[in-house]
Amino acid sequence: MPTDEQQACFEAGIKFGSLYHQFAGTPVSPDSAPSLERAMADAIENQPFCESVTVDIDEAALAAATDDHGYVELTGRFMEVEMRVEYEDVVVRTAMTMEDGYPLMRLVDVE
Amino acid sequence: MPTDEQQACFEAGIKFGSLYHQFAGTPVSPDSAPSLERAMADAIENQPFCESVTVDIDEAALAAATDDHGYVELTGRFMEVEMRVEYEDVVVRTAMTMEDGYPLMRLVDVE
Amino acid sequence: MPTDEQQACFEAGIKFGSLYHQFAGTPVSPDSAPSLERAMADAIENQPFCESVTVDIDEAALAAATDDHGYVELTGRFMEVEMRVEYEDVVVRTAMTMEDGYPLMRLVDVE
Amino acid sequence: MPTDEQQACFEAGIKFGSLYHQFAGTPVSPDSAPSLERAMADAIENQPFCESVTVDIDEAALAAATDDHGYVELTGRFMEVEMRVEYEDVVVRTAMTMEDGYPLMRLVDVE
Repeated sequence: MPTDEQQACFEAGIKFGSLYHQFAGTPVSPDSAPSLERAMADAIENQPFCESVTVDIDEAALAAATDDHGYVELTGRFMEVEMRVEYEDVVVRTAMTMEDGYPLMRLVDVE
Repeated sequence: MPTDEQQACFEAGIKFGSLYHQFAGTPVSPDSAPSLERAMADAIENQPFCESVTVDIDEAALAAATDDHGYVELTGRFMEVEMRVEYEDVVVRTAMTMEDGYPLMRLVDVE
Repeated sequence: MPTDEQQACFEAGIKFGSLYHQFAGTPVSPDSAPSLERAMADAIENQPFCESVTVDIDEAALAAATDDHGYVELTGRFMEVEMRVEYEDVVVRTAMTMEDGYPLMRLVDVE
Repeated sequence: MPTDEQQACFEAGIKFGSLYHQFAGTPVSPDSAPSLERAMADAIENQPFCESVTVDIDEAALAAATDDHGYVELTGRFMEVEMRVEYEDVVVRTAMTMEDGYPLMRLVDVE
């Protein structure tokens, strides 16, 4: 039987994969970034065991990358994400940040 | 060469397919519906020639359908959408509404 | 009432937006490109009025762009798409190709 | 510092969330199910630490649910998924199956 710690880490991973692959490709501009940040967080917080999600879209990076039409498709290079998942007595904190040019989803701590 | 009317209708279709397939599957509850409605509209309005998008998620239908976890995955049966696309001098209005139990994307008028 | 030509162009646009936003973000490598090409075509051919879809993922471009993990997320810069939509007596052919560094969805002809 | 077991479970969750939210909503019919099964497995196997993925779309359930157009949008009720993730010396097996009418992603074992 998996332990509560293992289950908690599995659940935390599900939330990250869900957030990323649900919203990657969304047309986003500096003006529309705030509503997208909020909707992404609210949507994933619906999932079981997901206590909080924070999405920060980097509007300066967006502005630098937008094409002639004024927007780009969302990818990991434009956002930082933090999540807290609680499963039974275990709290897992995770984050997505850029490392060496790639967005990296990582476990921050498990308590 | 396609006419401006044909191009305008093609562009209107692109927006509808984009909106639907970008956001279908998003976890949504009565509480998170408003932020999702706004983000969907703002995202698609970024696309070329898309002048306005209105998304109305049916919170009563959501509440009736939510599972034990309190949310569902977004599908066409939970939303109505209206869009206006302008290409050169042509204005196209489109809508998605339920018809006989299926969500139907349709051209409302082309002027 | 919209004409059959207008409806046909609208339907053609829906298919393109659907294909793009359903599959953008999919992890893809030179080895997995053929199965993805086939699944994308088969999936969109299910939609009403969609007679044929061809997806050509550019494996050389993929190979040049893959990260340290050997894959990328699918975007328009890695694929060319052709579709034929038939609505009543109207046949619409569409294509997505790169133009000036951007993937462009366009009407090829309406007959 | 998270342990290898915790990391392995987190990675396993990421793959499941990715698979589900990348492909949910894809138009699928009994005829197109085999190419979609294969593309889903091949796509997710590209991700780091993902050793094998098996997707089994239930063609009988699809056939029973298809609408007048002969297809449905893919959701968890139409598929069973098994995955094996390996991180350092840890092997994680996961599965998605229907439980009480809901698709449930679960850890099968961690070794």
